[in-house]
Amino acid sequence: MSTIFDKILGGEIPCHKVYEDDHVFAFLDIGPLSTGHTLVIPKERKAKLHELSDDASAAIGRVLPRLARAVMKVSGCEDYNILQNNGARAHQAVFHVHFHIIPKPNEASGLGIRWPAGSLDGTAGAALAQSLRDALA
Amino acid sequence: MSTIFDKILGGEIPCHKVYEDDHVFAFLDIGPLSTGHTLVIPKERKAKLHELSDDASAAIGRVLPRLARAVMKVSGCEDYNILQNNGARAHQAVFHVHFHIIPKPNEASGLGIRWPAGSLDGTAGAALAQSLRDALA
Repeated sequence: MSTIFDKILGGEIPCHKVYEDDHVFAFLDIGPLSTGHTLVIPKERKAKLHELSDDASAAIGRVLPRLARAVMKVSGCEDYNILQNNGARAHQAVFHVHFHIIPKPNEASGLGIRWPAGSLDGTAGAALAQSLRDALA
Repeated sequence: MSTIFDKILGGEIPCHKVYEDDHVFAFLDIGPLSTGHTLVIPKERKAKLHELSDDASAAIGRVLPRLARAVMKVSGCEDYNILQNNGARAHQAVFHVHFHIIPKPNEASGLGIRWPAGSLDGTAGAALAQSLRDALA
C-alpha cells in the first residue's frame, strides 16, 4: 500500500529533510510533539517493523545515535524518546515503518507515557522465554 | 556507572533470557506492560542511545524485526510498540540503553501514549532542518 511517505521519498510532496543515505531517510515531523521531533524511515516500503529486512533495520539502527546527537545539539534537550509504532492500536498512523526521535524538554511537551506495569511470575516467565527462544530457533 | 543490566549480562542476577549474539542480549521485562514485553540491550555499557557506538546500535537494529516476529508469534498480538527512553524525564529508569518491545493487545495494557502534537511552521521548519543538517555535517 502506498503512503504519504512514498510521496515524500519520491519528492512528490516536500519535506524538511534532515538526512539521507542508501537505506534511510529522515525529516521533520510536521506535527511535532516538541521542537526537533524527527522521523527516520527506511526507503524499503514495509508497514511494520517485523516485515522490514534485517539490512534496512540495521541501517536505521546504525544512524540513530548520530541523528540523536544532532537532535540534542539543535534542540538543546538531553532527554528524548525513540518510538516506533506498529498497528493502529499501537498508535501507528502512517503504514510505512518510521522511528520517532522526540526530545522531552518538559512534562507538557514531548512524548507522554502511561506505564501500566504488571509483574512477571517466575514460572510463567520461564515458559514464555522458552517459547520465545523456540520461535527464534 | 554500573547498573542492574551489567549484573544480568554478567550472570550475577538471573533473567528470562530470550536472545544473545556478540553485541546484543534480550530478556523478559520483569515489570511487563503486556505479555511478551521484552528488553533488547547492547552488551556495550552506555546510558543513552546517542552515546552508543554505530556498530552496537546497528546490531540491535538488525535483530529487532526477528525479535518482533517472535514476540508477535508467542503473544498472539499483531500490534506493538518499540520504545527506547533516554533520561529520567523521558521515563528511563535503568541507565543502560534498552529497547522495549511491547505488545499492544488492548487499550488497558501495553504502552499508553499521550500525543500532544503541535504543528510545524514552514519557515521555522526550514531553519530547523538546516540546523540539523549542519549538525550532522
